Amino acid sequence: MPERSARTRFRRRPAQGTRDLDVVYAILDAALVAHVGFLVDGLPRVIPTLHARIGDRLYLHGSSAGTMTRALAVAPEICVTVTLLDELVLARAAFEQNVNYRSVMAFGIPEAVTDADEKLAGLRALTEHLMPGRWGQCRQPKRQELKATSLLTMPLSEVTAKLRTGGPTDDDADLELPYWAGIVPRTVSWGPPVPDPGLASGVEAPEVARTYNRQGS
Amino acid sequence: MPERSARTRFRRRPAQGTRDLDVVYAILDAALVAHVGFLVDGLPRVIPTLHARIGDRLYLHGSSAGTMTRALAVAPEICVTVTLLDELVLARAAFEQNVNYRSVMAFGIPEAVTDADEKLAGLRALTEHLMPGRWGQCRQPKRQELKATSLLTMPLSEVTAKLRTGGPTDDDADLELPYWAGIVPRTVSWGPPVPDPGLASGVEAPEVARTYNRQGS
Repeated sequence: MPERSARTRFRRRPAQGTRDLDVVYAILDAALVAHVGFLVDGLPRVIPTLHARIGDRLYLHGSSAGTMTRALAVAPEICVTVTLLDELVLARAAFEQNVNYRSVMAFGIPEAVTDADEKLAGLRALTEHLMPGRWGQCRQPKRQELKATSLLTMPLSEVTAKLRTGGPTDDDADLELPYWAGIVPRTVSWGPPVPDPGLASGVEAPEVARTYNRQGS
Repeated sequence: MPERSARTRFRRRPAQGTRDLDVVYAILDAALVAHVGFLVDGLPRVIPTLHARIGDRLYLHGSSAGTMTRALAVAPEICVTVTLLDELVLARAAFEQNVNYRSVMAFGIPEAVTDADEKLAGLRALTEHLMPGRWGQCRQPKRQELKATSLLTMPLSEVTAKLRTGGPTDDDADLELPYWAGIVPRTVSWGPPVPDPGLASGVEAPEVARTYNRQGS
């Protein structure tokens, strides 16, 4: 487990926080979208992007590459947050309505991936993160596509996860109130796949696209 | 439509951006979780929180109130980003894999809600945002609960939405490749509700909890 830092120390609700890397990695791997916070002209900006993990490193698709690259040259630190929403938590008291979630914050200074092999590995990880097996079911990147791919990477060395699980936390005095309380679970489902017009004749959707069932994000 | 600012000007993919408030509001209203970016000791931090909209104002639940309140006293500007993931976009070329999404960034300087009536209205909006009708199906806040509620609000005056829709954007030269391409739609479903142990006898899950069907986040 990584050392705690001032930013990964638990506050307020100790039971919800962990720096256990198995937990952190599972949340990062389950989420399809990451929110990246960085500074632009000294002010916070948060953009959604696609991410993937290779071992203890995080890779980020530089979808807003222009703005972010310029910004990181001035203020290199970022905070990457992913959040999985699991359940609504309905309480007897209005004040106690909540959600169950799993969330990770990762702090660090990302570097642009410039090495061609690492870029290929990163792009592969992003593609496989989106859909396992996809890398072998599409045309591999050309040299100029790799060059045009903007990819950031940073070590997952300063990370923390927060999780809320379980039912509502109504006061004992409220338990007998005539209001329903409990949780409403959330499920994500996918498909069926919709083919792009102009597919080469005879090309069928691969098994992995027909049975895609990623929960989480 | 609000005036553009340096931060809400469209870059790189003009077709994806809009400041149309109908679009911005619809995305904010559909999302269950917002990611709030702010500065702590001059460095970016992004935390997930619950939000709601009342007209042209955004309300945020101060779930990490301690840290955020202290941080905002020093660096008051925040960026609130919500993202809805709609579809996987699978392309013939690895380089073109993508997702369809709807996202909003809102910039501003939030204020702590201190007025009791506004706090009640804000808490009501947060509750109703989570589940329409819920406010009337739970115990109203006591004075000390309202006092303990940390709520931020800011005007939605500097906002922008980004949307990706449609299929993959493979090069013409790739269209005849023998790879499947298309989209995989995402659906969120909810329920069935799981009652909290210790419900008062005879209390049944309300219709709105049994039929909850919010898409988006």
